[in-house]
Amino acid sequence: MAAKMKAAIFAEPGRIVLDEKPVPEIGPNDALIRITTTTICGTDVHILKGEYPVARGLTIGHEPVGIIEKLGSAVTGFREGQRVITGAITPSGHSFACLCGCSSQDGPGTKHGFKAMGGWKFGNTIDGAQAEFIRVPDAILNLSPVPDHLSDEEVLMCPDIMSTGFAGAESGAVKIGDTVAVFALGPIGLCAVAGAKLMGATTIIGVDTVEKRLSIARTLGCSHTVDFRTADTVEAIMEITDGRGVDVSIEALGTQKTFESALRVLRPGGTLSSLGVYSSDLTIPLTAFSAGLGDNRIVTTLCPGGKERMRRLQSVVASGRVDLKPLVTHRFKLDDIEAAYDLFAHQRDGVLKVAITP
Amino acid sequence: MAAKMKAAIFAEPGRIVLDEKPVPEIGPNDALIRITTTTICGTDVHILKGEYPVARGLTIGHEPVGIIEKLGSAVTGFREGQRVITGAITPSGHSFACLCGCSSQDGPGTKHGFKAMGGWKFGNTIDGAQAEFIRVPDAILNLSPVPDHLSDEEVLMCPDIMSTGFAGAESGAVKIGDTVAVFALGPIGLCAVAGAKLMGATTIIGVDTVEKRLSIARTLGCSHTVDFRTADTVEAIMEITDGRGVDVSIEALGTQKTFESALRVLRPGGTLSSLGVYSSDLTIPLTAFSAGLGDNRIVTTLCPGGKERMRRLQSVVASGRVDLKPLVTHRFKLDDIEAAYDLFAHQRDGVLKVAITP
Amino acid sequence: MAAKMKAAIFAEPGRIVLDEKPVPEIGPNDALIRITTTTICGTDVHILKGEYPVARGLTIGHEPVGIIEKLGSAVTGFREGQRVITGAITPSGHSFACLCGCSSQDGPGTKHGFKAMGGWKFGNTIDGAQAEFIRVPDAILNLSPVPDHLSDEEVLMCPDIMSTGFAGAESGAVKIGDTVAVFALGPIGLCAVAGAKLMGATTIIGVDTVEKRLSIARTLGCSHTVDFRTADTVEAIMEITDGRGVDVSIEALGTQKTFESALRVLRPGGTLSSLGVYSSDLTIPLTAFSAGLGDNRIVTTLCPGGKERMRRLQSVVASGRVDLKPLVTHRFKLDDIEAAYDLFAHQRDGVLKVAITP
Amino acid sequence: MAAKMKAAIFAEPGRIVLDEKPVPEIGPNDALIRITTTTICGTDVHILKGEYPVARGLTIGHEPVGIIEKLGSAVTGFREGQRVITGAITPSGHSFACLCGCSSQDGPGTKHGFKAMGGWKFGNTIDGAQAEFIRVPDAILNLSPVPDHLSDEEVLMCPDIMSTGFAGAESGAVKIGDTVAVFALGPIGLCAVAGAKLMGATTIIGVDTVEKRLSIARTLGCSHTVDFRTADTVEAIMEITDGRGVDVSIEALGTQKTFESALRVLRPGGTLSSLGVYSSDLTIPLTAFSAGLGDNRIVTTLCPGGKERMRRLQSVVASGRVDLKPLVTHRFKLDDIEAAYDLFAHQRDGVLKVAITP
Repeated sequence: MAAKMKAAIFAEPGRIVLDEKPVPEIGPNDALIRITTTTICGTDVHILKGEYPVARGLTIGHEPVGIIEKLGSAVTGFREGQRVITGAITPSGHSFACLCGCSSQDGPGTKHGFKAMGGWKFGNTIDGAQAEFIRVPDAILNLSPVPDHLSDEEVLMCPDIMSTGFAGAESGAVKIGDTVAVFALGPIGLCAVAGAKLMGATTIIGVDTVEKRLSIARTLGCSHTVDFRTADTVEAIMEITDGRGVDVSIEALGTQKTFESALRVLRPGGTLSSLGVYSSDLTIPLTAFSAGLGDNRIVTTLCPGGKERMRRLQSVVASGRVDLKPLVTHRFKLDDIEAAYDLFAHQRDGVLKVAITP
Repeated sequence: MAAKMKAAIFAEPGRIVLDEKPVPEIGPNDALIRITTTTICGTDVHILKGEYPVARGLTIGHEPVGIIEKLGSAVTGFREGQRVITGAITPSGHSFACLCGCSSQDGPGTKHGFKAMGGWKFGNTIDGAQAEFIRVPDAILNLSPVPDHLSDEEVLMCPDIMSTGFAGAESGAVKIGDTVAVFALGPIGLCAVAGAKLMGATTIIGVDTVEKRLSIARTLGCSHTVDFRTADTVEAIMEITDGRGVDVSIEALGTQKTFESALRVLRPGGTLSSLGVYSSDLTIPLTAFSAGLGDNRIVTTLCPGGKERMRRLQSVVASGRVDLKPLVTHRFKLDDIEAAYDLFAHQRDGVLKVAITP
Repeated sequence: MAAKMKAAIFAEPGRIVLDEKPVPEIGPNDALIRITTTTICGTDVHILKGEYPVARGLTIGHEPVGIIEKLGSAVTGFREGQRVITGAITPSGHSFACLCGCSSQDGPGTKHGFKAMGGWKFGNTIDGAQAEFIRVPDAILNLSPVPDHLSDEEVLMCPDIMSTGFAGAESGAVKIGDTVAVFALGPIGLCAVAGAKLMGATTIIGVDTVEKRLSIARTLGCSHTVDFRTADTVEAIMEITDGRGVDVSIEALGTQKTFESALRVLRPGGTLSSLGVYSSDLTIPLTAFSAGLGDNRIVTTLCPGGKERMRRLQSVVASGRVDLKPLVTHRFKLDDIEAAYDLFAHQRDGVLKVAITP
Repeated sequence: MAAKMKAAIFAEPGRIVLDEKPVPEIGPNDALIRITTTTICGTDVHILKGEYPVARGLTIGHEPVGIIEKLGSAVTGFREGQRVITGAITPSGHSFACLCGCSSQDGPGTKHGFKAMGGWKFGNTIDGAQAEFIRVPDAILNLSPVPDHLSDEEVLMCPDIMSTGFAGAESGAVKIGDTVAVFALGPIGLCAVAGAKLMGATTIIGVDTVEKRLSIARTLGCSHTVDFRTADTVEAIMEITDGRGVDVSIEALGTQKTFESALRVLRPGGTLSSLGVYSSDLTIPLTAFSAGLGDNRIVTTLCPGGKERMRRLQSVVASGRVDLKPLVTHRFKLDDIEAAYDLFAHQRDGVLKVAITP
């Protein structure tokens, strides 16, 4: 009889509940990880609300830190007992998407084609990380050992938040001396600020309204912050930039308002790097787009994964250049995960990220 | 008393008329060109209709082929009597836009800033090419000698049509073996087809409905054509690509329908390269955008100019690899330019481009 | 008792001989291919001569065309009986090298490191293609179906020659209107010419001395050829380019002379794309290098592999844009492979490539 | 009678002397700058020693900070009395080099060609900055106002040292999480360290032997330093990187030893970014080059110039992210410049950079 474990599953729209499931079995290319710390993502709240559909009974969560419990027979280069993370996105390495340079879009498709977002598997198409154990597919590609001197919480942002936020700056191709605006300073926006700073931006403008977020943003790299409730955001940014506009704007929320503002503040030739998960059609205002003649770019990015990405992000943490510990504002036991969802979904008590431990 | 010349001027919405104006005077960095051949662009029709505002009395046109009549005192490297072209876009070389790598956005601006489209001067902010003479600003940067063995008509597409169309493929970063779809096969779309082929695309799908255009498109590089009146364009392209979608789609019209279709046929990770001049807000449908998670790019490009660009485009013509002569379907004298506008604006008689000579 | 097959093995320096070996066994991620056509590469001659060391008894050859005889249990997306090619380089998809974007350098290494050239396995570190059967590792990543209407010989250049030659142009980042010089017009140099043309070069200068090669080079895209025995190569190229030099030079031999000439003909800001396999130290002459201040690049590339690469190269063949059939000058049975080596190693009878069939 | 000024001129090999020369006259595109602070570069020492030839009587120096004394009639966007810097390299903006994207190679050439290093004019082909006044050509492109709150010394490194050092990291395309080694920690090497850090490198290894330099390097971003007199540099770096090698190595001296070491420590697929001015042929050892098959790049860069570059570098200083004040170790009056050369040329007293004021 299979061993049992606790897991947070999607029961139905409005309900993610703690349940009991069998500990996953693994195949030759898999690894079984015993979760030591995980967290809840904004996307999980979309799932909770039924806005993003997943199968009923699926274990939710895509941000695992844990210990290798068991390795598949074909997985080399790791040992059981090692502490590891894996990215939220777990590319296979062998799909056409991977070989086209967009491994986050990995996954089975039509002949040589592939479907969007196929690389996002945990808590989407296979069981996720809010559990005692998780099965990691294509483990040789996706396990990344955690340096001994880093705590679970210090690397907890690597699987998704840091990787996504930094990718906002990377896809925007931020350069030394750039001016960057980041719209919405939730965990991903805050990491986008840190990423823009890491890449050499010298003027970084953060937009939000929660003072605590604006304050962390200044610590992470914002030279300016704009409170959208007390200022016309676009006007304020144009003033900060002497009317020039920004080289790169990063959208980190997923709404028409932030998308549109991010477009309006671009200088000719500038890039809008979009990270948000949108839930309705978007409008590109003609004037914000220079009628199509402004040499502008709109770039979207899904969180990059894989062990090399995780190694690099952990090296950023280890270097001490970016300190994301302030993002973990609350801690819960896995047994209390329903309370954690309640807090997080309602954004109560200044929550940014919660740490969940078994 | 200044010499007089004939020029096609914007009189008022609905009326571009032939008039008499003084031959332009030139400053130290300018050149005076005696026009030998020019043409009418779709943008000029927007001006004619009052959809794109320019000053009354302005000479229209931005595609000059001619002879250097006179050089400003500071202009070196050329000689009077030389046959030259200049790009439709005439960057200064010294603006912040030029130094930021987007020289088509050149032009005066706020301190270190710049306004969109500033590099487009001819027939927009200064007198244009549909005249006997034209003043070329920053001539040292913008004059490009025409090789003796090429006729005026052979290089007539270089200033705008070729430069813009090719830029569609270049901004899309077409690679060897790519699949590319081009939406609308007017002169610019046809040049986008040629550009995609030049860059190594092996499957090129052209979308239009005019058989003559589809036929020229096949000659210039289309492996497949889709008549949007007899087929669902998106479905047809997905079928041609075995459900994979295209690596790069090029929008060459400027409408919601073509923009949206160009987005829908993209594979995850693919790029929409937009060339069209839009006249209203655009909608990005949520599903066509993978909710912002498809690693897609939307890139807009304004026609690149400058003498190096013109040199390269002329070398393409000289190499014989792209033959655009079939695009010149009608010829007019400058005296008859009002008739030329009438034909061109109404797209009568299968017109693609007209050649105008004094 | 294991079935036996014929295979060309490295016996000792100076001797590659036909021998009998067991048909390879395969693991879950492998495929067994029955070879229908293969060929001999210049690198194999280095092995024959003992200049490049491999284990005695190893089957030589890295350019397989064949039929899937058997698929490993974990290999999906293919079926037995399918005709396929695989690249000469067979990346794993899961190494740090692959995840760093240089999959040809794939292979086991130190912790997160990797050794150069690790992706080249066939006929180097594992048994190769000059045999009746070959085991393909990481088959899901490396098998590429051959379109029915293409013959074995039409796709025989894809695994190495085309992939390497095209990569010379790709790593040089050839652009529309570029001037490119290719040094040495063996099979790889000829493919570099074709690659430069595919990417939009309009002036392509080929350097060799064998008239047949110069003649094929003109067919594949050379606008100019230089016979290095009757002209000073550097001088001739500077004259062809009006003293400007070339945007990209491609070295396709692996000698000091060609490397140095390729450097000397570069314009400031130009790129030397090196494909040759060198056998001794190289000298960079101070003057050819502008003392390090010329904004030049020297780029080396190992043949790219993987199923997406092979799919794209086959699409180039299928498009009819590049016809490499003239490269196959001689045909041999596998039984006569020793004679084929003798002909090929001595470059007799105008040989370019030989086709070997069982 | 023309006004006179003091200027440090190249008299003959071994002698740079203070002399009297007329204050420069300016043309319509020029500006006259009254120097308030300048400095001496290692290149000036090459000139002093006769290793780099310039005309006798030429004013030396290419790093000007000063006040606009007079503007040419065609120079707009600035006002007399403004404090400005200009880059060491002063591109014209209109040459083929500029339009090919390598503006530091600017300058007159053959037809559409250009000579290497043509953008370096000050103290090379026209009078330089070690004087009371300097004429700046193409001033509209090259003048960059200094923010009021920055001192002359704070921006003194922008024209050359910072621009060159940062370019080492930029041309190496340093990415977040990269490991970078910098060979030689003179002023340019130190700025390369700062540049690598600004672009997101998390492991930066500096190589030198002067403790003070190693110490500043740690302040500017080095996580590790190697003293080449007490360690085998290559071995030490391979050990620091767990045998992996570095993603990018930056050569900042111009010798065979540093060049070769920079090549030997590269991982497969890594980039050697070379900043040094070499004075003899270089050898690429076969093993350090993986016989040409390691997917490596060697990139050289000449100091980027122009007002946008200077604006960005000054924004880095203003942001407080890089503090180069410790590089100014000595101060001299222009009257004492011969003593300054004596100190600097012999690298006495721990000199890094000297500030020269009238």
